[in-house]
Amino acid sequence: MSQDTTDRPEGDLRNTGMSLRHDREWDYELDRIAAAVDERDAETVGLQFPEGLKRRGPGVADDLRELLPDGVSVMISGQPCYGACDLDTYLMRRTDVFVHFGHSPMKESDNIIYVPLFSNVDVFPILERALDEELTPAEDDPDVGLVTTAQHMNKFEAMREHLEDRGYEVHTRRGDDRLTHEGQVLGCNYASAEVDADQILYIGGGKFHPLGLAMEHPDKKVVIGDPVNNVVKIADNEKFMKQRYASVHKAMDADTWGVIFCTKIGQGRWDKAEEIVENNDDAYLITMDEITPDRLTNFGMDAYVNTGCPRITTDDGPQFKKPMLTPGEYEIAIGEKPLDELSFDTFHGTW
Amino acid sequence: MSQDTTDRPEGDLRNTGMSLRHDREWDYELDRIAAAVDERDAETVGLQFPEGLKRRGPGVADDLRELLPDGVSVMISGQPCYGACDLDTYLMRRTDVFVHFGHSPMKESDNIIYVPLFSNVDVFPILERALDEELTPAEDDPDVGLVTTAQHMNKFEAMREHLEDRGYEVHTRRGDDRLTHEGQVLGCNYASAEVDADQILYIGGGKFHPLGLAMEHPDKKVVIGDPVNNVVKIADNEKFMKQRYASVHKAMDADTWGVIFCTKIGQGRWDKAEEIVENNDDAYLITMDEITPDRLTNFGMDAYVNTGCPRITTDDGPQFKKPMLTPGEYEIAIGEKPLDELSFDTFHGTW
Repeated sequence: MSQDTTDRPEGDLRNTGMSLRHDREWDYELDRIAAAVDERDAETVGLQFPEGLKRRGPGVADDLRELLPDGVSVMISGQPCYGACDLDTYLMRRTDVFVHFGHSPMKESDNIIYVPLFSNVDVFPILERALDEELTPAEDDPDVGLVTTAQHMNKFEAMREHLEDRGYEVHTRRGDDRLTHEGQVLGCNYASAEVDADQILYIGGGKFHPLGLAMEHPDKKVVIGDPVNNVVKIADNEKFMKQRYASVHKAMDADTWGVIFCTKIGQGRWDKAEEIVENNDDAYLITMDEITPDRLTNFGMDAYVNTGCPRITTDDGPQFKKPMLTPGEYEIAIGEKPLDELSFDTFHGTW
Repeated sequence: MSQDTTDRPEGDLRNTGMSLRHDREWDYELDRIAAAVDERDAETVGLQFPEGLKRRGPGVADDLRELLPDGVSVMISGQPCYGACDLDTYLMRRTDVFVHFGHSPMKESDNIIYVPLFSNVDVFPILERALDEELTPAEDDPDVGLVTTAQHMNKFEAMREHLEDRGYEVHTRRGDDRLTHEGQVLGCNYASAEVDADQILYIGGGKFHPLGLAMEHPDKKVVIGDPVNNVVKIADNEKFMKQRYASVHKAMDADTWGVIFCTKIGQGRWDKAEEIVENNDDAYLITMDEITPDRLTNFGMDAYVNTGCPRITTDDGPQFKKPMLTPGEYEIAIGEKPLDELSFDTFHGTW
């Protein structure tokens, strides 16, 4: 498999807004890291980057080493990282200063320095285009929800004002504990769009988040303003919803179920996993961190329930040889809930 | 990628003697596990299988649940597992009884029940064929080393006697601390063949072990007697050695080096990794558990040094986009050692 995004099927988690491989300048806040090293008399520093920024790791390490006293070791996490739910706990526990780049805190901890890496892409031209091309005019429907990703949170208030200047009433909220900021979305949680407006404006790169938005809020119109790829359009979840229904139907014939408990720090739903296994003699609890087709194929079960990251299920699902369902979809497949209750598997809480 | 062994390129770790997917009967020692659960009043049991036996996981869990009191939870590790060096420490630390199937102990621990899973394949027909077809006759060279894998250790003394009956002097040893048994080989350690004989007889399935044997002991004649695939032949390391030389040559031009420290419990060589990074400003320490082409590609370095499992380097190396070297090969590539000192990267010690 190639890591090149052009080779990847649509829906692959890596072919999304989480990939930050554009030629932007980021502020790695090296002075703040050096200050923490000094304050703690640290001998080891661990750095964790999202997938799309791992390539910057060596350069950041070089720049940091110039600021640090001789003898301080800098280590880079080689584990995959798809969010603040996915801290490299091995490296975190073994370094005096641990830095997590590119995601906002899911939960504050004295052990972790979060460096947000705000984008310096100008969001206002795409906001203007979204207003012109896809948002319902304020005179017809003044209510609009506004959401964005951690990378653009530094522009959030200015975007709100921009919309208000055009006559909109902008509805925003902080989703729940899992989110750091008002108006912020995560791949697994679009509660910030649970507002009193029929249209939601998403400003951010990629299709990954608007797809989740549209799946979690199927009754709202989701307008995408993507300043990275210069795209304005309406999010469409139809293809993915069809895939979900197809997977549920296939899984209805399953004789054996693998129930996955994900061991990543912010992706574990133990109660859900345990409940399923306790109530189904044909269900087996499997613990793992990365959930991949290869790993599951080895078990040879008829179907899987993924209690970890819902986006592995919805976006990467078709790459797995056997149907993989969310916990809610599992209830439908075994006949405990009607098919029309199929909904996006939103993830709450921290760890 | 398919897990089917027929699809895999030669040299893939999964296409080896570690794959145990034959229709053999195994003794899972369920009574011993149930006794441990009873003795410890355990509420949770963790099961870890090698790749080729993961498919048996659900059946073993079913049989075990019949023996256990109601309310005891059985969990199966979904992490890859290539040896006793590769315990699922997450599951081990979170279960009252943790069972590791298919590998002999690298280090004894009260927390781990090792179930060896001795093969019931008859080894003597293939031993006879090896005597007839490839071993130098005892009258010409009576000295022979005898080695095998954990699966056939229960036949080791009988095999020794069989060879002695044919007039051979059988040389055996227990390699070092990393090995449990006299005459045992591991993928990373063939010290048990360091005996006073020019020919070594390996009895066991697959090409994986004899290839390592031939690489670690290039001056010895390694005779393979494979009772699983019914093959007798001489191990040939030529293709692999050519690949190693090619990788070293390519890496000589590298400007940046990723130095991998493997976080798996029995695959870490911290001192080696640290030494390389401390002495090379263009080297960056990367920590990870699974070492895969995807994970390294994200970093975009020119070459890598793998201080973890040497078989990832030698056997899977060609699947990586950039050259990956063993620590010894790295010394050659940067000019600290001559090319003719290239040798197999044997792994000593436990953890």
